[in-house]
Amino acid sequence: MSDMSTVLIGKKPAMNYVLACLTVIQNGSNSVTLKARGRAISKAVDVAQILTRRFATDVGVKNIAINTEQVKSIETGAMSNVSSIEIILER
Amino acid sequence: MSDMSTVLIGKKPAMNYVLACLTVIQNGSNSVTLKARGRAISKAVDVAQILTRRFATDVGVKNIAINTEQVKSIETGAMSNVSSIEIILER
Repeated sequence: MSDMSTVLIGKKPAMNYVLACLTVIQNGSNSVTLKARGRAISKAVDVAQILTRRFATDVGVKNIAINTEQVKSIETGAMSNVSSIEIILER
Repeated sequence: MSDMSTVLIGKKPAMNYVLACLTVIQNGSNSVTLKARGRAISKAVDVAQILTRRFATDVGVKNIAINTEQVKSIETGAMSNVSSIEIILER
């Protein structure tokens, strides 16, 4: 069940992820977790703000954690570090 | 004194801001606050991770807050919302 309440932020417009979060919440979940890496981190913050301020004002930020993940390049096979963020939203 | 321990993340390379944070810490401050808006949010997370994992391993993340700020466009004068982040690092 925990996987179902996680929304991975990627390259789509922020609004797509806001809708994904709203779907999770309207299916009865009390919390939804946003995860993003690299440049998508800014978008994750946007999604959290749009959601909690406009569409689900009863939902708030419970916790934010940042981390570093090792990513292997598909092209060169080299390892590189990329920052990640995890925003837990809760009703 | 609180202004002196705040580093505003902008368009320069991440390493510039890491050095700015190190300067704050080496001047005797026990905490440094990173602030960023919009796309610079990802870079703020990078700076926090590079600093705490490589250059100042005795410094850790104390708190992370996200918010929305209203910005007035210089060109059109229109108001728009922009996400912001505040990362408090502490020894």
